[in-house]
Amino acid sequence: MQTSQELYITYTELLQKAADLYYASAVLQWDQETYMPPKGAEHRARQLATLASQAHEMLTSDAYGSLLNELATRNDLDDTAKNNVRLSAEDYTKNKKLSPEFVEEMSKLTSECFNAWIEARKKNDFTVFAPSLTKMIALKKRQAELYGYTNHPYDALLDEYEKGASVAILDPVFSGIKEQLPVLLAQIKAATQVSCECFHQHFPKQQQWDFSIDVLKSMGFDMEAGRQDYSEHPFTTSFSPADVRLTTRVDEENYASLLWSCIHEGGHGLYEQGLPEEQYGLPLGAATSLGIHESQSRLWENCIGRSKDFWLGFYPKLQQYFPEQLGNVSVATFYKACNKVEPSLIRTEADEVTYHFHVLIRYEIEKALIEGSLDAKDLPAKWNELYTKYLGVAPVDDKTGVLQDVHWSHGSFGYFPTYTLGSFYAAQFYHQAQQDISGLKEQVRAGQFGPLLQWLRAHVHQYGRRYTSEELCTRITGKGLDAAYFMQYIQDKYNDIYEIKGKQ
Amino acid sequence: MQTSQELYITYTELLQKAADLYYASAVLQWDQETYMPPKGAEHRARQLATLASQAHEMLTSDAYGSLLNELATRNDLDDTAKNNVRLSAEDYTKNKKLSPEFVEEMSKLTSECFNAWIEARKKNDFTVFAPSLTKMIALKKRQAELYGYTNHPYDALLDEYEKGASVAILDPVFSGIKEQLPVLLAQIKAATQVSCECFHQHFPKQQQWDFSIDVLKSMGFDMEAGRQDYSEHPFTTSFSPADVRLTTRVDEENYASLLWSCIHEGGHGLYEQGLPEEQYGLPLGAATSLGIHESQSRLWENCIGRSKDFWLGFYPKLQQYFPEQLGNVSVATFYKACNKVEPSLIRTEADEVTYHFHVLIRYEIEKALIEGSLDAKDLPAKWNELYTKYLGVAPVDDKTGVLQDVHWSHGSFGYFPTYTLGSFYAAQFYHQAQQDISGLKEQVRAGQFGPLLQWLRAHVHQYGRRYTSEELCTRITGKGLDAAYFMQYIQDKYNDIYEIKGKQ
Repeated sequence: MQTSQELYITYTELLQKAADLYYASAVLQWDQETYMPPKGAEHRARQLATLASQAHEMLTSDAYGSLLNELATRNDLDDTAKNNVRLSAEDYTKNKKLSPEFVEEMSKLTSECFNAWIEARKKNDFTVFAPSLTKMIALKKRQAELYGYTNHPYDALLDEYEKGASVAILDPVFSGIKEQLPVLLAQIKAATQVSCECFHQHFPKQQQWDFSIDVLKSMGFDMEAGRQDYSEHPFTTSFSPADVRLTTRVDEENYASLLWSCIHEGGHGLYEQGLPEEQYGLPLGAATSLGIHESQSRLWENCIGRSKDFWLGFYPKLQQYFPEQLGNVSVATFYKACNKVEPSLIRTEADEVTYHFHVLIRYEIEKALIEGSLDAKDLPAKWNELYTKYLGVAPVDDKTGVLQDVHWSHGSFGYFPTYTLGSFYAAQFYHQAQQDISGLKEQVRAGQFGPLLQWLRAHVHQYGRRYTSEELCTRITGKGLDAAYFMQYIQDKYNDIYEIKGKQ
Repeated sequence: MQTSQELYITYTELLQKAADLYYASAVLQWDQETYMPPKGAEHRARQLATLASQAHEMLTSDAYGSLLNELATRNDLDDTAKNNVRLSAEDYTKNKKLSPEFVEEMSKLTSECFNAWIEARKKNDFTVFAPSLTKMIALKKRQAELYGYTNHPYDALLDEYEKGASVAILDPVFSGIKEQLPVLLAQIKAATQVSCECFHQHFPKQQQWDFSIDVLKSMGFDMEAGRQDYSEHPFTTSFSPADVRLTTRVDEENYASLLWSCIHEGGHGLYEQGLPEEQYGLPLGAATSLGIHESQSRLWENCIGRSKDFWLGFYPKLQQYFPEQLGNVSVATFYKACNKVEPSLIRTEADEVTYHFHVLIRYEIEKALIEGSLDAKDLPAKWNELYTKYLGVAPVDDKTGVLQDVHWSHGSFGYFPTYTLGSFYAAQFYHQAQQDISGLKEQVRAGQFGPLLQWLRAHVHQYGRRYTSEELCTRITGKGLDAAYFMQYIQDKYNDIYEIKGKQ
């Protein structure tokens, strides 16, 4: 009989080979969205499909299933090994529900759909995207059926990104948003408005880029183990904790576009760089969930990057990069500009308050698309209706409307809600960090992020998937996700910025 | 019984899946040499190894072997299919000689070796590279034994890049060089020297780049189906005929570095873009041989890019990019500068005459390393000895000496001779093109390369591996490779440039 250690090595080797294929796909996808020439799309799609099906084959083989069953009976494995085996068994059960043909079809369709989205954006025409998207929705419905669900087909897809998430859990979360945020929004509307004019000047591309690299380095992003490039839609991917790729985009007439995406993706990147390298390819080497991933990007983007202390430290440097544009703008004015609240069309450029309406709209649309009460062809009309309802604004075209996000072209239905969960976790974690790290405020003001990064490494990054989001949150803060932290954070912040006197 | 057509489809699907993995590796390698951050190297190595072993497994499976055997008996396949099957059977026999473990070991060592080479170049220290190189040489010797050979172990490696090449064939080729080129070199030395001073001025990076893109577009390189980036060592790779990647390098104080590598790699790139896309992953979709590949890069680089007619057309444009540097340099002076003959240290920057001594030196060294008469540790001394012997110059350090080429770090032993074969094929093909295309000289002068590209597409590119190099050469020129064409071409050219009066 093979020893547990021998079996575990066999398991590790198999899983790491599958990870090699998975990370190879990630390289091909990164290239597809950064540098690939347009005619490369067709063959790239088949290459990605083959990689996906090869990895899927490895991870669903009967031999691997037997190995996991055998390992599950071994009590002499250490704690790390037991956790890896437990999580792999869960993954195996889930993976087995999708046939190799399904996986290959999904991979091919994803590439087709992504390229249709790029093309549709170029032409500013949703109808270019609609046929591929319709196929994608049909395939996602099939996927939900294959995974199975108790209450709502959308649950099966939500669980993919945030284990345990469901319509039953999220409906109340978004109801809370619908109840509480309009109150704050009304207070803000009634107050003296702040201006973000200073962002809308000409900011040359190269200086924007250079400052973004300075910020990433200050945050602790290791440029020897990662890099930043441009893409249509900012994202973070990694090929190991030692090779993490961020992308950003630039608008020379709107500095906000690059600045926030850089800090946001930088937060994701720090998480990826902080995952335990020795757990490469194993569950404990992967991020907890998308919600927790997003908590990292939002903590850096919002709690840090949009804080007064951050700019008290960084603003003089920024003024050196842009003396003409910002030389006569005070840090107080700039800080307020960073946090102007105003209903708008583009999710990724929204402020911290209205942002969650953008997510809510997508949540309602996805739920409707997956349950079949909404057709892809009716999406732009529905989109415009909901934007008018919740934000009081309506897109002038598809590019600023229904075509703005890459997610659906990737088949990522169920992903958007993790953005809101991420913001809520971020507020709760940051509240705890302020209690745990003495002098954090002063450190942020001094641009010294080492202690914060160490705290995140110790409390979040190092664990990989060992704990669920809720377990992790409880370990860190003493309780599960509580939206009250976010509501308090946001109320305090905007009371100050908009000089709101107490609650109404 | 399955029909031949059904079997052929099964064969095609299998081969194209293996190609997907192969091209995925190519993307990972391209990224490794262009954008990958340094710490990404370790995991990249294992990812490449896994892809290589997966592809190798597919291409050496018994099921695939049986399929090829069965297909070989079918007479109702069309000519294209028969050729694919015939060549795949040859490949299969060869691939079966390497075990999966060997392939994985080679892939891992290649990444290790490449990174050691990068590191060694940074430190300008061969000893940093030596341990990995020693392992690589040992592995190449094992590979030669596994492939088998009749006369010399190096033959087994040569055949990898140029089917049929061997020490018995190449020794006389290089003897010819050793006899004939010194005569021309002596004539040139005795003549009034030309100056290449105009290349050694400050040429800003961006303008160099912009002109190179202009040239590539004029050559007919499709920028929608390819791109150019920077790397340590220029190379061309492709992920399909619709996604061809060129790399170049830049030296702001020496314009020659970027200019020639761009046109050279552009020639390779045109070949890759010209391969039949419908034969993706099949033998008829791949290049004939490295020698023929090199004939394309050299025809463009030398026969075109270093010709008087080319610069009569392009020089005014170049002057517009660099008015300060070249405004007062005549086209006659510039043309001579493009073709200055002078023994030097760097192969890739050598002129058309001395270039072949650089290849000769590497040929002699590789032969010695593989037969075991030379140790890796003695390489720098041997290198310097041969450079002194054949070129009368000796490197001042490792970077300008034994560390200059990437090839050995890739395990590419047997590759260098194809450069000389390529030059010889190029001269012979170009001689034929001048006869076949009426007005070619005037077209080159007008920067109109369409007819030449069409001629190359029709005579070389479209066939893939259908013919061997020698068969292809015979189809195009009526006979196999004949070094006399190159010798005549080079004699005529330099007689003109150096005003040499007839043969001595």
